[in-house]
Amino acid sequence: MTKVRVGVAGYGTIGQRLADGVALQEDMELVGVADLAPTLAIRALYEKGMPYDLYLVDGADKAQFDALGIPVSGDFEELIDKVDIMLDSSPGGVGAKNKEIYEKKGVKAIFQGGEKNSVADVFFHGYANYEKGIGKDYLKLTSCNTTGLIRSVDCLDKAYGIEKVAITIIRRVADPGDYHRGLTNALQMDKAPTHQAVDLMTIMPHINATGILVHTPVTHGHIITVVATGKQKITKEMALEAFEKHPRIRVVSIDEGFKGNASFFKYARDLGNSRGDMYEIGLWEDSIVESGNDIMYAINIPQESVTIPETMDGIRAACKMQLNGEEATAKTNEYLKIGRFKKK
Amino acid sequence: MTKVRVGVAGYGTIGQRLADGVALQEDMELVGVADLAPTLAIRALYEKGMPYDLYLVDGADKAQFDALGIPVSGDFEELIDKVDIMLDSSPGGVGAKNKEIYEKKGVKAIFQGGEKNSVADVFFHGYANYEKGIGKDYLKLTSCNTTGLIRSVDCLDKAYGIEKVAITIIRRVADPGDYHRGLTNALQMDKAPTHQAVDLMTIMPHINATGILVHTPVTHGHIITVVATGKQKITKEMALEAFEKHPRIRVVSIDEGFKGNASFFKYARDLGNSRGDMYEIGLWEDSIVESGNDIMYAINIPQESVTIPETMDGIRAACKMQLNGEEATAKTNEYLKIGRFKKK
Amino acid sequence: MTKVRVGVAGYGTIGQRLADGVALQEDMELVGVADLAPTLAIRALYEKGMPYDLYLVDGADKAQFDALGIPVSGDFEELIDKVDIMLDSSPGGVGAKNKEIYEKKGVKAIFQGGEKNSVADVFFHGYANYEKGIGKDYLKLTSCNTTGLIRSVDCLDKAYGIEKVAITIIRRVADPGDYHRGLTNALQMDKAPTHQAVDLMTIMPHINATGILVHTPVTHGHIITVVATGKQKITKEMALEAFEKHPRIRVVSIDEGFKGNASFFKYARDLGNSRGDMYEIGLWEDSIVESGNDIMYAINIPQESVTIPETMDGIRAACKMQLNGEEATAKTNEYLKIGRFKKK
Amino acid sequence: MTKVRVGVAGYGTIGQRLADGVALQEDMELVGVADLAPTLAIRALYEKGMPYDLYLVDGADKAQFDALGIPVSGDFEELIDKVDIMLDSSPGGVGAKNKEIYEKKGVKAIFQGGEKNSVADVFFHGYANYEKGIGKDYLKLTSCNTTGLIRSVDCLDKAYGIEKVAITIIRRVADPGDYHRGLTNALQMDKAPTHQAVDLMTIMPHINATGILVHTPVTHGHIITVVATGKQKITKEMALEAFEKHPRIRVVSIDEGFKGNASFFKYARDLGNSRGDMYEIGLWEDSIVESGNDIMYAINIPQESVTIPETMDGIRAACKMQLNGEEATAKTNEYLKIGRFKKK
Repeated sequence: MTKVRVGVAGYGTIGQRLADGVALQEDMELVGVADLAPTLAIRALYEKGMPYDLYLVDGADKAQFDALGIPVSGDFEELIDKVDIMLDSSPGGVGAKNKEIYEKKGVKAIFQGGEKNSVADVFFHGYANYEKGIGKDYLKLTSCNTTGLIRSVDCLDKAYGIEKVAITIIRRVADPGDYHRGLTNALQMDKAPTHQAVDLMTIMPHINATGILVHTPVTHGHIITVVATGKQKITKEMALEAFEKHPRIRVVSIDEGFKGNASFFKYARDLGNSRGDMYEIGLWEDSIVESGNDIMYAINIPQESVTIPETMDGIRAACKMQLNGEEATAKTNEYLKIGRFKKK
Repeated sequence: MTKVRVGVAGYGTIGQRLADGVALQEDMELVGVADLAPTLAIRALYEKGMPYDLYLVDGADKAQFDALGIPVSGDFEELIDKVDIMLDSSPGGVGAKNKEIYEKKGVKAIFQGGEKNSVADVFFHGYANYEKGIGKDYLKLTSCNTTGLIRSVDCLDKAYGIEKVAITIIRRVADPGDYHRGLTNALQMDKAPTHQAVDLMTIMPHINATGILVHTPVTHGHIITVVATGKQKITKEMALEAFEKHPRIRVVSIDEGFKGNASFFKYARDLGNSRGDMYEIGLWEDSIVESGNDIMYAINIPQESVTIPETMDGIRAACKMQLNGEEATAKTNEYLKIGRFKKK
Repeated sequence: MTKVRVGVAGYGTIGQRLADGVALQEDMELVGVADLAPTLAIRALYEKGMPYDLYLVDGADKAQFDALGIPVSGDFEELIDKVDIMLDSSPGGVGAKNKEIYEKKGVKAIFQGGEKNSVADVFFHGYANYEKGIGKDYLKLTSCNTTGLIRSVDCLDKAYGIEKVAITIIRRVADPGDYHRGLTNALQMDKAPTHQAVDLMTIMPHINATGILVHTPVTHGHIITVVATGKQKITKEMALEAFEKHPRIRVVSIDEGFKGNASFFKYARDLGNSRGDMYEIGLWEDSIVESGNDIMYAINIPQESVTIPETMDGIRAACKMQLNGEEATAKTNEYLKIGRFKKK
Repeated sequence: MTKVRVGVAGYGTIGQRLADGVALQEDMELVGVADLAPTLAIRALYEKGMPYDLYLVDGADKAQFDALGIPVSGDFEELIDKVDIMLDSSPGGVGAKNKEIYEKKGVKAIFQGGEKNSVADVFFHGYANYEKGIGKDYLKLTSCNTTGLIRSVDCLDKAYGIEKVAITIIRRVADPGDYHRGLTNALQMDKAPTHQAVDLMTIMPHINATGILVHTPVTHGHIITVVATGKQKITKEMALEAFEKHPRIRVVSIDEGFKGNASFFKYARDLGNSRGDMYEIGLWEDSIVESGNDIMYAINIPQESVTIPETMDGIRAACKMQLNGEEATAKTNEYLKIGRFKKK
């Protein structure tokens, strides 16, 4: 079988993980990654021995790379010429400009959450609307919070039917290593409704969603509480049964040692996962409570890596590698070893 | 009129503020405060010139106070002999022991949230169940989060009727200056349902309440999101109208500069409020959203001082100073200058 | 005696405290404060009943103030016309522009640390070089860290002679309530030598100084460690003796309860100081250690308020209110009640 | 060649990394690890497929492990019977008890920094006193800060001679994932002199050392500033030359992107290092400044992993695998791939 050839634009927090994710897909080939400057991520790529070829985007100063001895395989257009599809994780707004090149070159592309929806033909989630992405040229992935949130809502929706959700996002404000943004001893409000609720309605238009987002001064993983109204009464046992079956949801408890978002990061590090990444969202069994006919629960979103599986799903849809979501997500899960922890 | 004579046991974070609060009530007399050791709070009391008389509880080493020149007015029982009612803000569990002395001496007492409900005849909130406290000997105040939460829920309930609430508490983990507890770069889960929801149902048994609590590494003010189901559809305008009228709720917006919990603390400091305290809860106008027939909003709880007004209300109830809650809370508000900021 | 008439440009973190400081000086008159927009600080001024008259700087939209009912006393030039000296705590760079107006109007001015040294005739510290500021038109105050650092170094220098200092500044990264800057779970390096060491050498040219600054994600008070080389061996006892005598240095110990920077803020709040401000630096007795012939110690810098006394000294120098530093600092200390805590 | 057989007691933050480190030494065999309860670290070991055999220490409840399906290879004494040397990273104080078993069984042991010095024959550092550990039965490793500090001081001392150091430790207060300790918006002082300075003098008795330690609310890496007095004047160039040559010191600059401790953690994650660990200390080229005849600089200590190489050195010394430090540290470095990043 010919492998689908994939390039990555922007080798930052998301781009590095996209490249690693593609490299693990046995039916895809990572052609190379493109970036602008010898950042720490690029220096680390070099120190690791250049497992991925590096291309330079417009505006890059090749002399800087030469001075450091970092080999460069070509420019951005050369990368694009070699691929079937680009994963664009450039800084917000750059993806829209890159799209002009992708269109000119006739390659497909998947954009990350930072771009406007209008950049893409479809706003995409591997579980909730795979079929909408099939064969499309330009997809936009949901953001990290929305991706994880939809996993859990779609899971309940498929099992029991969901009418309405009200969410509270307790957002980590910066990634580990970020120095360009941060918050010190302060919680910060966003105006409601938060965009993740609005985005959920775009992907799942049959559900009414709203919510409030509060930024918190931590770096490892958002926590979202969800109040979900079912078409029928959903008990704690029913919710738990559905969540336990989902490959990309890891059901845990406080008593096991998962005391909060930092426990997930520690656990992922102890697992030896590269960068301490985790593809699954966490869901606390002991957070699930019934509120009248509604069900309430809390999930943990590993913001740096949660969108990687759904982006792999997106490649599968756009390039028609699988024609239904169930098969596609199963392939992605297999290659990323997602779900190996599931109770038999 | 004879003033009600009040003593304070435990001159810590809450005790200091209770003493200041009583001192402002023109129909009460602060007889003195009692503590165990020359803490920073006691040293500050001394440096300020001993505005309040100090008594020592059992186990205190008077020599330590003498060495520092801090005048002592007597022991704990001597204080109790001079008062009508004690406000007990001792560390959790000590209040229950102190109660034996209060019973022996025949004085009333109000305990803070750290004690078990069984310590008191009534679990009390100035707005939600004033009448239950009238003439009772032992009251227990709701905790800071519950006090503020109930203000907002009772406000909507009185105006429109509330059936159910689902809350998410984004809890500040320590007070400014705390070194005995803290959290670093981590959010921490509590098992659901959180006790504040359970407590709300004790005070307001006609409402179904549940919720999830997440600890965050900040010091200034909890934030709670509330999803409230009305007996009728409550619109944003209806909610806002009710909140605007409540003297102990300060309606603000992000655009005015109230960006989060730290803005309230800054504002209280800029107001020149002693210790930067704030008696009102904050409520963000731009957090209010409708979720189907439910209404959702976010409030800010100034954890160090929010229970002071309701404790003053408690004195009024226990000592039968006023025989209905409306008059009592109005008196408290007048003396604490609460509501002066309200739009006319 | 005619009082010196003072205006304040920029009613932010420093400007508010300068205004309060001037208002306490019985030989000065606070004419008014000037600002640009109805910030939280201005809204608090209004809610307090306008204890200070407000003037609007160029670019302000008076309609915004009118809509809120905030009375405006005039424009910036009108304020300047009424004063002898302006305290300029505008955002960095604005002071240099304002200086053109001050020069045109012939009023003196004192600039805060954010401006370039070239804006002023003299880089000023009340204890270390008072005489240089006498009668000068334009002074620039040392920054908060430098102000506190110099207090301690000058104190040792006057007592025993200092040749050299090497400092480590553990800097709080934001003020309480700041949302425009912050750091989350990260220490951040500045390039060495840090400017505070360079500034110290400008004020005290006979001392060799260098140092390293590290930003930390806290809001209450910088901590500086100082390694000082004396002209003679300085023992711990000698250092302590000198520090104990200095009115603007508060000698404390961990055992008393001063566990870190947050303890000072707590203590200042408990003292009832407006905004929890502290004019004195803290110095830990149990941090003082001898390193061969050098002496090492740690101080706490209350960044929001520490420069207020030295700015009052600056007014005294520029306006020739006192002709030597000892008398001037004594006057400032008297009106600000600095030193009242000193052991007799 | 017969491999030295090694066991690890305590599979926590340090124990996990010791096990990984031993597993990489081609002349050692990791026999197994011992622990008490199915912590997250043990659960991760299981989810990874038990790369290391697990033994249970006294007091463990085997039923808990059985219930989770985690295979157990035996009890603590069975592990000890199979090894030549134990690495004891039990909680502080437990190591001293374990020593009785080690003595009974006649196996050597290396204790981590949490134990008292008296537990061991020698207080050990691979570079500074390797020869003292040769053939000894019980070594105690220096703590993480002391280990990293000594690397840098020994490096200068060997090159130029050092007489005196004065250090400021800006300590991270908790590891990522810690929920049992933490600090929120506060810097915390320890009494001076800090134990790391005292420990340095134990290892390097010809140097006079003192210092101050301040805890900060971050999780990734301590930063230490060092003021070092040479036997001769040490210029920045001289210091840099020595640091550049040291395999366990990584010289970096702010301009490259190493903005603080969080940058090192990010870089180690991007390198794909297991758990984001880093064996080298970081040293900022742009922190090095001359202070008269002294030299001042700042280093970054990756607290979770920095002691691993020196512990490997300790095994080499205790088991007489190499008879001089240069050969031993070279072997350790080779197997841990330390120094691969060094400029040629």
